[in-house]
Amino acid sequence: MKICRINMRNKSVTFEDVKADYLALGGRGLTSRIISDEVDPTCHPLGRNNKLVIAPGLLSGTMAPSSGRLSVGTKSPLTGTIKESNAGGTAAQSLAKLGYKAIIIEDKPAEHELNLLKITPEGITIEDADYLTMKGNYEVGDILREKFGAKTTVMSLGQAGEMRLTSASIAVTDTEGHPTRHCGRGGTGAVLGSKGIKAIVIDPGKINEVNYHDRNAFIKASRSFAKMVLDHPVSGQGLPTYGTAVLVNILNEAGGLPTDNFRDGRFEFAESISGETMYETINKRNGNPTHACHPGCIMKCSQIYNDKNGEYLTGGFEYETIWAFGAHCHIKDLDAIAMMDRLCDDIGIDTIEAGVTIGIAMEGKYIELGDKDGAIQLLKEVGKGSPIGRIIGNGAAFTGQAFGTERVPVVKKQAIPAYDPRSVKGIGVTYATTPMGADHTAGYSVTANVLGVGGSIDPLKKEGQVELSRNLQVATAALDSTGLCLFVAFPILDNDGALPEIAHMINAKYNTEIGVPEIVSLGQEILKLEKEFNKNAGFTKSHDRLPEFFKEKLAPHNVTFDITGEELDTTLEF
Amino acid sequence: MKICRINMRNKSVTFEDVKADYLALGGRGLTSRIISDEVDPTCHPLGRNNKLVIAPGLLSGTMAPSSGRLSVGTKSPLTGTIKESNAGGTAAQSLAKLGYKAIIIEDKPAEHELNLLKITPEGITIEDADYLTMKGNYEVGDILREKFGAKTTVMSLGQAGEMRLTSASIAVTDTEGHPTRHCGRGGTGAVLGSKGIKAIVIDPGKINEVNYHDRNAFIKASRSFAKMVLDHPVSGQGLPTYGTAVLVNILNEAGGLPTDNFRDGRFEFAESISGETMYETINKRNGNPTHACHPGCIMKCSQIYNDKNGEYLTGGFEYETIWAFGAHCHIKDLDAIAMMDRLCDDIGIDTIEAGVTIGIAMEGKYIELGDKDGAIQLLKEVGKGSPIGRIIGNGAAFTGQAFGTERVPVVKKQAIPAYDPRSVKGIGVTYATTPMGADHTAGYSVTANVLGVGGSIDPLKKEGQVELSRNLQVATAALDSTGLCLFVAFPILDNDGALPEIAHMINAKYNTEIGVPEIVSLGQEILKLEKEFNKNAGFTKSHDRLPEFFKEKLAPHNVTFDITGEELDTTLEF
Repeated sequence: MKICRINMRNKSVTFEDVKADYLALGGRGLTSRIISDEVDPTCHPLGRNNKLVIAPGLLSGTMAPSSGRLSVGTKSPLTGTIKESNAGGTAAQSLAKLGYKAIIIEDKPAEHELNLLKITPEGITIEDADYLTMKGNYEVGDILREKFGAKTTVMSLGQAGEMRLTSASIAVTDTEGHPTRHCGRGGTGAVLGSKGIKAIVIDPGKINEVNYHDRNAFIKASRSFAKMVLDHPVSGQGLPTYGTAVLVNILNEAGGLPTDNFRDGRFEFAESISGETMYETINKRNGNPTHACHPGCIMKCSQIYNDKNGEYLTGGFEYETIWAFGAHCHIKDLDAIAMMDRLCDDIGIDTIEAGVTIGIAMEGKYIELGDKDGAIQLLKEVGKGSPIGRIIGNGAAFTGQAFGTERVPVVKKQAIPAYDPRSVKGIGVTYATTPMGADHTAGYSVTANVLGVGGSIDPLKKEGQVELSRNLQVATAALDSTGLCLFVAFPILDNDGALPEIAHMINAKYNTEIGVPEIVSLGQEILKLEKEFNKNAGFTKSHDRLPEFFKEKLAPHNVTFDITGEELDTTLEF
Repeated sequence: MKICRINMRNKSVTFEDVKADYLALGGRGLTSRIISDEVDPTCHPLGRNNKLVIAPGLLSGTMAPSSGRLSVGTKSPLTGTIKESNAGGTAAQSLAKLGYKAIIIEDKPAEHELNLLKITPEGITIEDADYLTMKGNYEVGDILREKFGAKTTVMSLGQAGEMRLTSASIAVTDTEGHPTRHCGRGGTGAVLGSKGIKAIVIDPGKINEVNYHDRNAFIKASRSFAKMVLDHPVSGQGLPTYGTAVLVNILNEAGGLPTDNFRDGRFEFAESISGETMYETINKRNGNPTHACHPGCIMKCSQIYNDKNGEYLTGGFEYETIWAFGAHCHIKDLDAIAMMDRLCDDIGIDTIEAGVTIGIAMEGKYIELGDKDGAIQLLKEVGKGSPIGRIIGNGAAFTGQAFGTERVPVVKKQAIPAYDPRSVKGIGVTYATTPMGADHTAGYSVTANVLGVGGSIDPLKKEGQVELSRNLQVATAALDSTGLCLFVAFPILDNDGALPEIAHMINAKYNTEIGVPEIVSLGQEILKLEKEFNKNAGFTKSHDRLPEFFKEKLAPHNVTFDITGEELDTTLEF
């Protein structure tokens, strides 16, 4: 394993051995560690002193099921905090097979430039990429596969990242070559854009396996773990059939589906945008409801969503996306929402941030609530870089300021996703306290609050929520370091045998002797590092709070977010 | 004296006696105290929980020379800090004569509304003002004087405040009825707009004097003080002749006139935009170079600047404005800059923020450096509320984010004004550490650094700068509480007899027994309150820093800003 350091000022590419204390790290654990070690927390996120670190997880590239997650770490231009954003797709496995522990991109060109990084078994080269100027991710992928081969993995920026808009994502191609998987949250695409990089093409050539200390032991643990994943009703049945959109009806029933910019917990047209409706629609149009975003994924929560003519429209069409453009904006047309998902993938912006932002443009009366054509047009403006497009592309907090409205659901300037923190209080604790800015994936308390996974904690009461969020945030920080998809958390939470099998896989690959306690310690250490970075960047507990309007009562349960600041402040104390 | 509390939700107007511990406060001292006492530091600046406090100074309305400053305090939507922004014009004297210690505006209408406050000897009423929708300050003034009488003082918002753009100012009419005096910095106009108030009309009727404990003693101290002001070369000669624009040539000579977005310390066309050129131009066109913004001002730094046809164009045309649209944007046409000053006054935005922001739009290549027509057009767009106008109207940091550029001269998101902190290091200390965000008036170290007033401290060396800024920040906080124009600081700094005369005036009016030590204590107490508010709002010492690019060397002296964070952190320790 090696670390590659790429300086975009002088265009140098150097290789380093992995430091001893980085050896046991991967994914988020490694990106957060390198950013903490090397980046001044007070630097401008788009300036010379920020860095962007790309790291596969500890198990990426192995036979472990659903182990294709890639971590990107940086100081976020959206939140100003440390950021780890991870994506599926085919990049992590390719990088791991090529022996990359991490790639560190630093400094930036003196003037605006467009380059691409070409990664092959021969090494890494930096090439001019002016011919990709202001092209969307779909076209970029087509051009680069034409140029570098059909099997090339492409990580790329759409127009948004090139313009350094703070909701810009980094797209990663899926198994079909579509740019549907994204490091979405926190504007990592803007940082890559500031470094003058439009795309990274990865061709592992004939290298198709990673090294194992004990291959047989790995196979044994991996098979046992895969069975647990497939035996769980959520990861084995719900996700493969309906994708994450299965949550639309569930959250609506729970009164936790934020509607009309968090004015209601239920959406009258939830059925029209539900996972069940999506499933029927996909089947009717000869799409595919059960699609893996990377080889070896056994949960296959992705899908191929075709348009009315049966032509491919989009994939990786998630619950949070459907919520953001749907219930949040009072839009009930699933095809329109699918078009918006595709536009976000193409332009390269986070769908959660974009959908919440469109709702804020409605709040500010720039377009009417529910105006699906207006919403689609606004997204197209982002791709054009018009002034209104630049407003929308900079996210919800920015758009709220542009239109002078204060009802903006953000924490640390990152949009609050698809679960109302008043009726799913555990997730509210996560939004407020994760070092990442509002992020459901950082500690997905929806499990015990709504899904009955990992026990059951009344989502409407404050009792137990802080502890629930704490435990999940710790476990997630560790899981985000393995390269395993977060959805393996479902079997882990319900099956005490699952987490030990992850330890067994790590031990079999790396000749280590870790167990569950070491995994927990790893999660805690990562969170401590991240909190320390944020503290030095100027964040205080006053930033670990939800917006004031969550003191308003939410129908149908008439609940407020009543967990106090003092209670929130204990969440990540350990 | 009384305090009036106006609730804009239920439209109540109530009067309160002045609390004992508010009696000795006025201006900034009182606004910062009330905001500290009554506003949650974590509230959204445009939400229901922010308040806006209007307070004349302790000496406003008296015979004291140049005592017409009005303070407006709030939590700033631009910086997120506590904010006091003060203006000249005729409002402070009228309010003081009507017996107002302060007016506190709280809560906000449920939906967007436009009202005006009518203040007369009979009391305060709230009236509908829909007929003023999206009108500029010049037209608003004309309409309201037509309606309420020619001598009415008008405080108003242009289009910017109505749209709650965060560089929005509150205009105050001068002695000609022109809206040339502004609470400019920090977006106080956006807060007033969020409260649903477009204008405040003040008619003191026949009340033309305030009460004095000892009128004769007041007259004596006041005359002595006035003589000191007139005897000082800056306040007695420089300002009345050339206005503050006298500084263009001085700062250019000192290598401290930031040019082309802080890339140079000298502007090749400085002479074209100098105070001397302005003076000649005004005289040639039968304007007036020596104009008082309020009755009783003896420094008369304002002017009437006519256009080429001899028609009134603008007034209150300041050095910082000329710098911002001039050297910073590489524009050398004084008439174009005067037009931009007028547009800012009319639309109701801070000229410093606006000029720096236009320069950032140039940095982001939205228009070309030096494009005066493009700059004028951008300001007009602010008045229209188009998307690009909303970007510009939200200031420099916002515009930098919109265009993905990190070279943005701001501290706490407020634009750095007209003195380069590398070659005038004392002012750099003030920018970094004042609780207000970058603000030259908060501790005007240019005095000893460049003007040789109050001693002389080498502006290129770090020695003595922290102490200089500290002393000036303390004195300024106190002066901002008196209602006296800040420019009385020139005689105060050079004449030990001046500050005692201010104490004598206060004592003669209020039957108190304060001296210079109490004035110093007052300044320190105000700064402590303000810092505490900011701390609770989430500010840390990491926010008391200049942008990274001030580590670049500045020509012609090839100096960097080399005062360390640790040194800066001692500035307001007392």
